[in-house]
Amino acid sequence: MAKQAIKKAFSGIIPPMVTPLLSDNLSLDLDGVKHLVEHLVLGGVHGIFILGTTGESTSLSYSTREKLILETCKAVNGRVPVLVGITDTSIEESIRLAAIAKKSGAAAVVAAPPYYFGLGQEELFKYYWSLADQVNLPLFLYNMPSHTKINIDVKTVVRLAEHPNIIGLKDSSANAVYFQSLCYLLKTNFTLLVGPEEITAQTVMMGGHGGVNGGANLFPKLYVALYNAAIARDFSRIEELQNLVMEISTRIYTVGSYGSSYLKGLKGALSALGIVRGNIAQPFTSFDEKEMNKVIDIIKEIEIKVAEVL
Amino acid sequence: MAKQAIKKAFSGIIPPMVTPLLSDNLSLDLDGVKHLVEHLVLGGVHGIFILGTTGESTSLSYSTREKLILETCKAVNGRVPVLVGITDTSIEESIRLAAIAKKSGAAAVVAAPPYYFGLGQEELFKYYWSLADQVNLPLFLYNMPSHTKINIDVKTVVRLAEHPNIIGLKDSSANAVYFQSLCYLLKTNFTLLVGPEEITAQTVMMGGHGGVNGGANLFPKLYVALYNAAIARDFSRIEELQNLVMEISTRIYTVGSYGSSYLKGLKGALSALGIVRGNIAQPFTSFDEKEMNKVIDIIKEIEIKVAEVL
Amino acid sequence: MAKQAIKKAFSGIIPPMVTPLLSDNLSLDLDGVKHLVEHLVLGGVHGIFILGTTGESTSLSYSTREKLILETCKAVNGRVPVLVGITDTSIEESIRLAAIAKKSGAAAVVAAPPYYFGLGQEELFKYYWSLADQVNLPLFLYNMPSHTKINIDVKTVVRLAEHPNIIGLKDSSANAVYFQSLCYLLKTNFTLLVGPEEITAQTVMMGGHGGVNGGANLFPKLYVALYNAAIARDFSRIEELQNLVMEISTRIYTVGSYGSSYLKGLKGALSALGIVRGNIAQPFTSFDEKEMNKVIDIIKEIEIKVAEVL
Amino acid sequence: MAKQAIKKAFSGIIPPMVTPLLSDNLSLDLDGVKHLVEHLVLGGVHGIFILGTTGESTSLSYSTREKLILETCKAVNGRVPVLVGITDTSIEESIRLAAIAKKSGAAAVVAAPPYYFGLGQEELFKYYWSLADQVNLPLFLYNMPSHTKINIDVKTVVRLAEHPNIIGLKDSSANAVYFQSLCYLLKTNFTLLVGPEEITAQTVMMGGHGGVNGGANLFPKLYVALYNAAIARDFSRIEELQNLVMEISTRIYTVGSYGSSYLKGLKGALSALGIVRGNIAQPFTSFDEKEMNKVIDIIKEIEIKVAEVL
Repeated sequence: MAKQAIKKAFSGIIPPMVTPLLSDNLSLDLDGVKHLVEHLVLGGVHGIFILGTTGESTSLSYSTREKLILETCKAVNGRVPVLVGITDTSIEESIRLAAIAKKSGAAAVVAAPPYYFGLGQEELFKYYWSLADQVNLPLFLYNMPSHTKINIDVKTVVRLAEHPNIIGLKDSSANAVYFQSLCYLLKTNFTLLVGPEEITAQTVMMGGHGGVNGGANLFPKLYVALYNAAIARDFSRIEELQNLVMEISTRIYTVGSYGSSYLKGLKGALSALGIVRGNIAQPFTSFDEKEMNKVIDIIKEIEIKVAEVL
Repeated sequence: MAKQAIKKAFSGIIPPMVTPLLSDNLSLDLDGVKHLVEHLVLGGVHGIFILGTTGESTSLSYSTREKLILETCKAVNGRVPVLVGITDTSIEESIRLAAIAKKSGAAAVVAAPPYYFGLGQEELFKYYWSLADQVNLPLFLYNMPSHTKINIDVKTVVRLAEHPNIIGLKDSSANAVYFQSLCYLLKTNFTLLVGPEEITAQTVMMGGHGGVNGGANLFPKLYVALYNAAIARDFSRIEELQNLVMEISTRIYTVGSYGSSYLKGLKGALSALGIVRGNIAQPFTSFDEKEMNKVIDIIKEIEIKVAEVL
Repeated sequence: MAKQAIKKAFSGIIPPMVTPLLSDNLSLDLDGVKHLVEHLVLGGVHGIFILGTTGESTSLSYSTREKLILETCKAVNGRVPVLVGITDTSIEESIRLAAIAKKSGAAAVVAAPPYYFGLGQEELFKYYWSLADQVNLPLFLYNMPSHTKINIDVKTVVRLAEHPNIIGLKDSSANAVYFQSLCYLLKTNFTLLVGPEEITAQTVMMGGHGGVNGGANLFPKLYVALYNAAIARDFSRIEELQNLVMEISTRIYTVGSYGSSYLKGLKGALSALGIVRGNIAQPFTSFDEKEMNKVIDIIKEIEIKVAEVL
Repeated sequence: MAKQAIKKAFSGIIPPMVTPLLSDNLSLDLDGVKHLVEHLVLGGVHGIFILGTTGESTSLSYSTREKLILETCKAVNGRVPVLVGITDTSIEESIRLAAIAKKSGAAAVVAAPPYYFGLGQEELFKYYWSLADQVNLPLFLYNMPSHTKINIDVKTVVRLAEHPNIIGLKDSSANAVYFQSLCYLLKTNFTLLVGPEEITAQTVMMGGHGGVNGGANLFPKLYVALYNAAIARDFSRIEELQNLVMEISTRIYTVGSYGSSYLKGLKGALSALGIVRGNIAQPFTSFDEKEMNKVIDIIKEIEIKVAEVL
């Protein structure tokens, strides 16, 4: 498939799916996976990204990761493309996960830089080139400097975009100058997706191709509607929807003031809405009862507002 | 003046003016100041911000800073509001600079956090509240975490916006999630200006009030036109102008790959276009001849393109 | 075993063993493991630590890590205690590695904080307490903030030292104030080992219990002699030996000026001395020929000097 | 004066003097300066360093800094060398302060890197070389990466040590590997002083020349005795004194868990002991009453213990 076709294939809202976990020993909640996949696909999303940061990939055992790939692809059953996170500090394990993804019918793989050793840009370039050579699905770069300690510099992305198997980048840096620079320098044949949902509308209007937005686990239709409004440049609609996205961001993802408040808030809200269980893998723990009650109150309010605008 | 009126007063393109310096001992180039002020005012800018990061404020002696305030206000002569940077590690010196600004006829002062000691958010809040109490011009907060080591957190800004004398914030973090959160939480009576010119268009479309853009020293009309296009939501015009802004950003501000390439590139380009001398205060030095020749070639190319679209 | 006995059991020089790799596909070099273990044990080391940062643990596949645990324990055959790194972002995988270590006859396990998500100190405390509950070998904390993005704060260590299964800490921060604070606050029943070989002598004199020194892979007898001199407070001997340790540090670990120069220099020098192959796992690559020639020249010089003093 | 003689001149305990401030408007407490100088000189210190981080230099106005230089030199009256901090972001102001220091009879000046703009090592090298050319007192480098955002790398120090006017370095990084590397590479004619008092004993034993220790404001004789014990390698005496130094560090400098706890604790303790007023310059504020009571209780306990061992 040519890169041009690929780019089109991966535009839109592609939620970074949370990983539903059972409370007993944090094993995979298989019913939760099926339920969440239906919620997302029926919500109109353009793809599903599993085993990202929101999916707590690095906290899961390898066997859990494998099972999740298989079960998600089976549940999705080709209705939308599945992107699989293969981020790991060991390139062997990344390649192994990519092979499982390929066999399961996934459409692409996504890799953040190795995150233990500090790398230089040249070392990073060589790592990605080598990884792209060894996986047999199209590869997205994943920029996540707060978690990996390294930014994939603009110049490095431009060089990596030359590799026939590297088709795009998901940027979770929130750095809009970085994203705009990539939009300008890689106008064609490279897919640029933004992580933070707060800026999906503006990046799509300025040349981005979509959003990998955690909140779409909660209200997929809201984020799809915002994406469509941005494509249509319908500003009154954008404003109406953006307000709700910002309300989720500023009220749900900030409960408790942890660095992990985003994840805890998101999973707590999913549980409050009855979508999936809220269990979180170590090293984190779920909200306590008081925090959880706060999340419940807020998300119920927001749920009503979302229903009104859709 | 009510905050509402103030906000209107500070919308638009407000270039962070570079400080023209003579080569002999890096004293102020008075003719350069006058010439640059005319260039900017005739270029249609909505205000002028002196003694910011682009103005190399912290590298200048106090007497040079004072002289610059007086000379700029005199040259501007009330045609547009002048904003004066009073950022300092010593609050006494900040207050003294604010008094000079007031006396010279400036419209507002701008302060980044004290940047030597590491502060907590509560300490930062108290510092700004105290500063706002002691200056007799409206105060803009200035978020510049890469240089000050501290982010003025969203919650802190929201609390500080309650102070009657704190009227807005200039954000140079490039973090668009941060900026969107402030746009959402401070919808009225607080002026939100963005530093990086690469994202002025998008932030203005999403609720921001203007750009404090270094490149406007070079081509003030270009940035004013982009701001107007963003206000008008004229996307074909935005795209045309944004491309030039991005060409300046990706070709001029990256020569030499220094951390200081932005400043060196900007002053080098100003010199190449004959606007002001390119001398830079220590701890930096100007580009060497080879780098300078590269800047000249590129900016001449861009100058022609800018002339074509305006 | 009481903590007091344990502390004694883990004092001295405990090299963080490099992982010998074959060049073909970077699989484990079994002969290299045996050879290196003999080199170390005959060199008089007091223990061997595998799967640390120097052992490139995070770059290795799980099957390679398992094989290394088994083969090292077999080769050591009880002559010195084996400590096994179980650092991982997934606590399940850490626990699994600890079980393999236990079964193989290892004496203790060592874990750095999970290194993808940013944790708060309270989250870190809970993580370690839970991990210590679930492994059935004594646990060493491993402070490595440059790689994990988090410092295990002094107060957190003091709280964790209350857990009956947490017996010590290896500190690779190079922060001597941190180390001294722990020496002062945890005088009894807690083993404090220092990573950087440049400061083993001084920390041992000031209350530390030993060094987990990478250079001991090269010249185990040199580091053991320095440890003994520090214990004996024999300053003329310390000075003589410390000079050689510093020559290795400043000449070998700095070739090429990479962030990864330590690892590349160490493996390059091991190869130059014919101890083990110099292959390095991705994301790194070995030195190029020019850099390697430099390493060879220097280490041969140093080898002669080391022979003279021992 | 040859560097060799200079090094001897600056060995020992050189307290970074706190700046006594009046409560009214935080102007200089002239009586406090005189009283503190006597306390230090009679305590046997080998020099006095004013306008360092502990002296809150960057928080003081220029006129306060000037007055402090004059008054301290007058009060010391040649009994010990006075070192003057000239750290500033503006090299002109640093040079001006150095001229005042020279005129007042100071023995040397001390400069940390400019701390607003981020510099590269080459830019830092050029800055220091230029500064050393322009001041007419011997210059100490001052490494303080937590506050300046830049480490003066080992290689840069080695290059700067070639300048005839650069005579030493004060290292407040707490990184003992860094300090050991400098001790090894700059064995002769370069004075290496360590900031954190917790590691003065060990660095002096390993080749350092003294300590610029904040706690010496409280108990100068204690730190002088520890320095002498380290020079004499009298380990039982070192242990006895080091325990008190660590008690001050772990109990006084940690009250309140602020980033600024060191400064607040030190000034609070000085006030509790009746040595000088505890007022702190903005952006900080003194401890509240509850915290202050805690400091009083602890320092009174320690005061008794210190008296017993001296």
